[in-house]
Amino acid sequence: MKTIGHLINGTLQVDNGRTQDVYNPSTGEVSKQVALASKATVEEAIAAAEAAFPAWRNTPPLRRARIMFRFKELLEQNSQRILELIGEEHGKISHDAMGELQRGIENVEYACGAPELLKGEHSKNVGPDIDSWSEFQPLGVVAGITPFNFPAMVPLWMFPMAIVCGNCFVLKPSERNPSSAMFIAQLLQEAGLPNGVMNVVNGDKEAVDTLLEDKRVQAVSFVGSTPIAEYIYTTANANGKRCQALGGAKNHAIIMPDADMDNAVNHLLGAAFGSSGERCMALSVAVAVGDKAADTLVEKMQEAMKSLKVGAYSDKSNDFGPVITKAHQEKVVGYINSAEEQGAKIVVDGRNPKVPGYENGFFVGGTLIDNVSPDMLSYKEEIFGPVLQVMRVNSMQEAMDLIDAHEYGNGTCIFTRDGEAARYFSDNIQVGMVGINVPLPVPVAYHSFGGWKRSLFGDLSAYGPDSVRFYTRRKTITQRWPSASLREGAQFAFPS
Amino acid sequence: MKTIGHLINGTLQVDNGRTQDVYNPSTGEVSKQVALASKATVEEAIAAAEAAFPAWRNTPPLRRARIMFRFKELLEQNSQRILELIGEEHGKISHDAMGELQRGIENVEYACGAPELLKGEHSKNVGPDIDSWSEFQPLGVVAGITPFNFPAMVPLWMFPMAIVCGNCFVLKPSERNPSSAMFIAQLLQEAGLPNGVMNVVNGDKEAVDTLLEDKRVQAVSFVGSTPIAEYIYTTANANGKRCQALGGAKNHAIIMPDADMDNAVNHLLGAAFGSSGERCMALSVAVAVGDKAADTLVEKMQEAMKSLKVGAYSDKSNDFGPVITKAHQEKVVGYINSAEEQGAKIVVDGRNPKVPGYENGFFVGGTLIDNVSPDMLSYKEEIFGPVLQVMRVNSMQEAMDLIDAHEYGNGTCIFTRDGEAARYFSDNIQVGMVGINVPLPVPVAYHSFGGWKRSLFGDLSAYGPDSVRFYTRRKTITQRWPSASLREGAQFAFPS
Amino acid sequence: MKTIGHLINGTLQVDNGRTQDVYNPSTGEVSKQVALASKATVEEAIAAAEAAFPAWRNTPPLRRARIMFRFKELLEQNSQRILELIGEEHGKISHDAMGELQRGIENVEYACGAPELLKGEHSKNVGPDIDSWSEFQPLGVVAGITPFNFPAMVPLWMFPMAIVCGNCFVLKPSERNPSSAMFIAQLLQEAGLPNGVMNVVNGDKEAVDTLLEDKRVQAVSFVGSTPIAEYIYTTANANGKRCQALGGAKNHAIIMPDADMDNAVNHLLGAAFGSSGERCMALSVAVAVGDKAADTLVEKMQEAMKSLKVGAYSDKSNDFGPVITKAHQEKVVGYINSAEEQGAKIVVDGRNPKVPGYENGFFVGGTLIDNVSPDMLSYKEEIFGPVLQVMRVNSMQEAMDLIDAHEYGNGTCIFTRDGEAARYFSDNIQVGMVGINVPLPVPVAYHSFGGWKRSLFGDLSAYGPDSVRFYTRRKTITQRWPSASLREGAQFAFPS
Amino acid sequence: MKTIGHLINGTLQVDNGRTQDVYNPSTGEVSKQVALASKATVEEAIAAAEAAFPAWRNTPPLRRARIMFRFKELLEQNSQRILELIGEEHGKISHDAMGELQRGIENVEYACGAPELLKGEHSKNVGPDIDSWSEFQPLGVVAGITPFNFPAMVPLWMFPMAIVCGNCFVLKPSERNPSSAMFIAQLLQEAGLPNGVMNVVNGDKEAVDTLLEDKRVQAVSFVGSTPIAEYIYTTANANGKRCQALGGAKNHAIIMPDADMDNAVNHLLGAAFGSSGERCMALSVAVAVGDKAADTLVEKMQEAMKSLKVGAYSDKSNDFGPVITKAHQEKVVGYINSAEEQGAKIVVDGRNPKVPGYENGFFVGGTLIDNVSPDMLSYKEEIFGPVLQVMRVNSMQEAMDLIDAHEYGNGTCIFTRDGEAARYFSDNIQVGMVGINVPLPVPVAYHSFGGWKRSLFGDLSAYGPDSVRFYTRRKTITQRWPSASLREGAQFAFPS
Repeated sequence: MKTIGHLINGTLQVDNGRTQDVYNPSTGEVSKQVALASKATVEEAIAAAEAAFPAWRNTPPLRRARIMFRFKELLEQNSQRILELIGEEHGKISHDAMGELQRGIENVEYACGAPELLKGEHSKNVGPDIDSWSEFQPLGVVAGITPFNFPAMVPLWMFPMAIVCGNCFVLKPSERNPSSAMFIAQLLQEAGLPNGVMNVVNGDKEAVDTLLEDKRVQAVSFVGSTPIAEYIYTTANANGKRCQALGGAKNHAIIMPDADMDNAVNHLLGAAFGSSGERCMALSVAVAVGDKAADTLVEKMQEAMKSLKVGAYSDKSNDFGPVITKAHQEKVVGYINSAEEQGAKIVVDGRNPKVPGYENGFFVGGTLIDNVSPDMLSYKEEIFGPVLQVMRVNSMQEAMDLIDAHEYGNGTCIFTRDGEAARYFSDNIQVGMVGINVPLPVPVAYHSFGGWKRSLFGDLSAYGPDSVRFYTRRKTITQRWPSASLREGAQFAFPS
Repeated sequence: MKTIGHLINGTLQVDNGRTQDVYNPSTGEVSKQVALASKATVEEAIAAAEAAFPAWRNTPPLRRARIMFRFKELLEQNSQRILELIGEEHGKISHDAMGELQRGIENVEYACGAPELLKGEHSKNVGPDIDSWSEFQPLGVVAGITPFNFPAMVPLWMFPMAIVCGNCFVLKPSERNPSSAMFIAQLLQEAGLPNGVMNVVNGDKEAVDTLLEDKRVQAVSFVGSTPIAEYIYTTANANGKRCQALGGAKNHAIIMPDADMDNAVNHLLGAAFGSSGERCMALSVAVAVGDKAADTLVEKMQEAMKSLKVGAYSDKSNDFGPVITKAHQEKVVGYINSAEEQGAKIVVDGRNPKVPGYENGFFVGGTLIDNVSPDMLSYKEEIFGPVLQVMRVNSMQEAMDLIDAHEYGNGTCIFTRDGEAARYFSDNIQVGMVGINVPLPVPVAYHSFGGWKRSLFGDLSAYGPDSVRFYTRRKTITQRWPSASLREGAQFAFPS
Repeated sequence: MKTIGHLINGTLQVDNGRTQDVYNPSTGEVSKQVALASKATVEEAIAAAEAAFPAWRNTPPLRRARIMFRFKELLEQNSQRILELIGEEHGKISHDAMGELQRGIENVEYACGAPELLKGEHSKNVGPDIDSWSEFQPLGVVAGITPFNFPAMVPLWMFPMAIVCGNCFVLKPSERNPSSAMFIAQLLQEAGLPNGVMNVVNGDKEAVDTLLEDKRVQAVSFVGSTPIAEYIYTTANANGKRCQALGGAKNHAIIMPDADMDNAVNHLLGAAFGSSGERCMALSVAVAVGDKAADTLVEKMQEAMKSLKVGAYSDKSNDFGPVITKAHQEKVVGYINSAEEQGAKIVVDGRNPKVPGYENGFFVGGTLIDNVSPDMLSYKEEIFGPVLQVMRVNSMQEAMDLIDAHEYGNGTCIFTRDGEAARYFSDNIQVGMVGINVPLPVPVAYHSFGGWKRSLFGDLSAYGPDSVRFYTRRKTITQRWPSASLREGAQFAFPS
Repeated sequence: MKTIGHLINGTLQVDNGRTQDVYNPSTGEVSKQVALASKATVEEAIAAAEAAFPAWRNTPPLRRARIMFRFKELLEQNSQRILELIGEEHGKISHDAMGELQRGIENVEYACGAPELLKGEHSKNVGPDIDSWSEFQPLGVVAGITPFNFPAMVPLWMFPMAIVCGNCFVLKPSERNPSSAMFIAQLLQEAGLPNGVMNVVNGDKEAVDTLLEDKRVQAVSFVGSTPIAEYIYTTANANGKRCQALGGAKNHAIIMPDADMDNAVNHLLGAAFGSSGERCMALSVAVAVGDKAADTLVEKMQEAMKSLKVGAYSDKSNDFGPVITKAHQEKVVGYINSAEEQGAKIVVDGRNPKVPGYENGFFVGGTLIDNVSPDMLSYKEEIFGPVLQVMRVNSMQEAMDLIDAHEYGNGTCIFTRDGEAARYFSDNIQVGMVGINVPLPVPVAYHSFGGWKRSLFGDLSAYGPDSVRFYTRRKTITQRWPSASLREGAQFAFPS
């Protein structure tokens, strides 16, 4: 059985240490092993990154960007292989994996603009004959720790911008599905990146803690659950590192009485069930304003869900695939059970999906729950499964209060065609990413991604313009040349 | 004896709690009392700020900026009173206090540009008929904790930008010299600020810890020593707050063999001894490249120091005044003693300055120490007194290695007229603020202030463009209007 | 009788040349004389500006900005005097003149941000060890030629930004109402501006042509009618000058069936009749979609106009005052006559207003015309009077086609609450300044003002960010320091 | 013999109209014919562009940028073919043509950043509940008219940015060497550009005048000689078009006494003789400060020029090739003759170069002329040949006065290692592109290219950030939603 190792200083390697099973969630079977890096292995990667830094830092941004141009080409040429790796280990259907990869590639495209993005500000005459300007210099060695749910995209949120800014990178992808990130890193190497600038270590807490504690690591980017994000953030900060840690979410859509309901249902379908709901931007709660809107929504959604198809990643006609593990499958079902027990109505029940030929796969079918209330467990916590919960309120303000009361503040959306309602909502809601008739308001790669409240720890958002600031340090130079001696001294004419 | 209280919700108040002596460092006598706020008093200030927030947040930036325009006028009209308050409690001579105030006012001038500075980025057609834009929304209640050495300027680094961005502020100034900040806050009130937007609480650790722990406080800005900065930073972060904490420094100037030596000496004089060296940007170490440069420097500096005059703040002909406390005076003298004991040469000795009529003032005279080496205590720690230490190295690289090996990375400077040397230095030195023939490279108000290494904890620099980012949260809105029904439906002609 | 002269090199002067009458349009009487500068006088002003340029160019932007801060204070302190001067010579009621002045002051406030606005872009390592940055350097002597309708505001659109960017200015205000601009220029002088940086010459075509032909004038800004704007633009360009020339307008509002009609009527009232319609952003055509919207609009507007009060500037209860001249009064009435003759319906007739005590004033009352069609003279040309014309169309597309077919493209507006309609309109309409439920979409001072089509000649818009680009020239510096000789040569240790 | 036609609406076509000879300058022989478009043919191209505009304008910038990503790949894959086409028709040696192409590709790389570059500015609450933002909308059909000397690069300065901003383009390349631009346009087509977005017409004055007069063409970009640039600019402006016209140059280098002379000579060699001096940024005048610097310069340059090799493009060991035509060869020789006649000293004489096997090629050898004075014809006019003229002055100020007195202000350079001299020079010199030890200070693609004085007609510079402004129109939208009726009306609870 294949063992997935590490990419250190341009070389693939496997040490003789601990390993862990990698499953195919569609079949429920172990398909590979992944090496779990020891402290020494992680330190080797850090050392390689540190050694590569001085030359890479001095490479002109335009040349660094050209490697990203080439990297984009290679990602596109090898996209089928990447989708296959994602499917095997995550279970995502290829159209969904393609969406993920495409979003990742957009970050590479943004990184190609590094020469523009790294411009500093130049001020002439801040005082008489004194000039001042800012430079955004790379940090050195930086690390990324990424989750299972977007095994290709989230790493691509981080390392292209980090590297194009002049840093060297150590990535620790999810040990549940490490292959796509590893393959992508090899493509970057193939694109012409010098050895040591990009490194990948697989591992578990030992690897993570090594990254968090090593003095040579200047910054850590993390995406995962909120408790881990908080741990990463406070630990990294206490160790003198810059950190950005993205956590969980509970994303609500408000359905206004004037919403185009067919459009809303159509969009909610993908936003709630796509990728089995294992997205930090999944739209998991629909808040209908008024019973009429709620009734219509539930009715149309129920109808639309009849054609939803859950199944193995290998069949492109499926809408979504399995969840990541057996344990997670059970957890999702547990949330549905608890909602039922707490008085909600299971309108569409996905607890026992039939997936012929894949009886051991970790499947949960699309589930619709009505009459959910704020005190229910299934509402308070992030389910991370293909479950859409419907809540009913009597006014838009009540819907907004509900959203603002939740601990998370990642994404939210309103369905309406009324300009005033949309503007009031987007202005006042305490959520970082807001959609107006857009159920998954993930900012494009040239804007930045950032939730509010306990969905993000850190001052700056991820990718886009903010990532330039996160991956560089501002240096301000103030310059005065003291006297005109050479200039005025260079007089060669004889006095007359 | 007067007791300095608190400014809460637009009203000056003194509770019947603990107080502490405020000294006049020029005479060594207690001149006032300062109230030390209890937890309840600080919470009252926070509550006032929170109550003022919704209306202030919705006030258009242009109107908020207009209060800053008026505030600038009032600061200028009342400058003499401010200088007097600084002099009485800090001991700074009025020309130096005027420099401090002027730098503070420049931050108010920058805040007047809020409408420009708060612009977000708007992208048309991020997808077909989908637009996206970013808004930089205020955080809510934010706090500032400021040091004794710039009792007017450092508060002005913080609250004008915080407030003009739409936040409400609680300031805890240094309890050693709180009057100037309190007076300035009253001027802001007079400029038309609504009650509760700006609050000042005096206090000690109880006040600080309340600000760090209260959930309503969204962000904390701090300037002080490195150990406290680190405590503030990790505590604030652990409590879910955004934080920016500026600490200590050890700022070196490299004197190159081609430097214009008279110019360098002239600049170093002010940079080393101005404000008794109690500045985080004080130039406290001169690193001469080659003995010839060193000998010339020491000789010329010794000569120039003959005219240096230390004394009470009330005499404008003095160059600098006392240090802040008796204890600090003893600490500075202790560093000079230690240098002497460890083998350095005290070229000019300021340990027993004569200040007739002010025999109990906390004075230390300008001191020049030659042959300092990296292992000496006086080199490793921040002295924060009127002491310039000279080190001798054999090459520019050796000088740079020395600087990079120090734990602090606030400011540094090179004296040369060689373009190449200047560029190599500014590019490679691991320090955040770099001067080329500028010994105090404090960025102007429209750039940002930030040291590297253990001189600043946080991702963003202070004041200037970075302060907009620190005092706001990015929100990204993505908008699609679903159908053309109204537009196309509004057809009133009869079909022919 | 007082003769208004010129401000040249800091001194008021009147030459013994030609003069012209200045009227009080409310009484119809001549109240002052204005000097008409000869070519020699204009050249004297240009020479003064040229002489002042080298020192002003080298004055740090922050210091230039501080004069603008002081200028703002003086404008506010002297606002009553300015309103009086505007009223006397233009006829504008003080509340309207205050609006004009306020808009003008906002441009001064924007100019206070010069240090931020003049920042160039700095790129490190455009090649190995090569840096490049841009500077925005002032042009030298620049001129402004301004119209009668905003005698204070339009000059303030130009010279504060021109001057704060480092240029020296020659203003030629309208000879019909030159006093407010002259008074304002004196306030700028009082604010501390060095002599010669700001000059005002009054005059007619001789003055204009001198400004257009003199080689020392680097740029010309103009606001007026389209035929003159076109002449100014092509002449200035042919003479090697940069030019920005703003001309006429015909601003339409689309009234959608879902518009909040009371709100629309209320806004249209001010937008159509304010300042007697003598605004390039006046809303002079309302295009109603569907007869129901049209009928409601006309009915409600007719009702609202009953309380409209035209009269002398000295009575603050008036809504608007006279038009600028007898000739213009006749021209406006002529347009109303022509509309009537061409078949339109005069719903409210302002041709013979009663203004007791001011029988010779140049008054036209508020006029509402319904059933206007595109072929009518009153539609094709700019009326510049208190006349609102209503057109009726059957669809939003028809309304947009009408707007796009007109030669002007200054401002336009839609009244709707539908997000989709608003977005489609603002995206596609061929007009530079678009309002959504905002009938006078004049950009705020920190955005830029610019019509499309024959409403503006030039690449850049007026005031705001674009004015920085218009009043400066980009210079790009590319720098490489050739060798490390000094740095590496400074080795003083003996080889071991 | 092959006839090069036009690319219109995605199709190559040749009409039966006039043609002109295309020479191989290395052999002096006619190698191809080029079609000269009639007015009708040009109008056909304009019509194709206009028809393609609505769809292209609405294509999201990210999708437009992706075609540029693909275009870059194709340019790189086909670079050998492009170099061959340039060599055949222009005579440039492949290493030089590669430099040209590389610079062109950098503009394509910059265009890939369109989503970032097209961001507008968004202001929340410009008034209560009023927002305002700017959009940079494409112009429509725009044209480019390009010169022979950079047959690939100058077109690439224009159309990638114009097209990625959403415009449709008509290119008229030089009729002397049209093949490379035509081939490049086909590659863009192959990259996925919709038909009609990019069109190429070959032609002469008839084609140019059609482009200048047709109302559908919104903007014209031109690079060529100053008299033609001026004609294009005034004609385009008079016809209501936006225009940017780049003309001639006379670029001086100041050689300071402290310059690293070997480095200077080495750089001057390429800057003066590369591409036979047929570059608007060619460094054609060296101004030595002091006779010692002059003597050293001339001596070292003379020595260095011994190895300079002129010859046919097909031999890569040549340093530069022929000039463009027989007539131009004679003109260049005429300038050398005139300098000699006016008293200058021909140090190295390239008037009769030997190029065995290419006796009829249009060759001029590298020529060095000393003792040139400002009154000489060879100094006053642009030679555009491989001729370096040396002038001798007694001070840096004298050198700067010389540069400032010249009618052109394209590029200039100083050789020094003195920071103060470099800063004084770059600050004060009246030239748009300044090098410090960089003899060809052509801004990189992410800065903008623009000379001053009579080297550029227009407000904005070419390519880089300025090109976004040139190829788009600013539109400012101001939005207020009138009432909260829907939001507040949606209350479904029964009153209690």
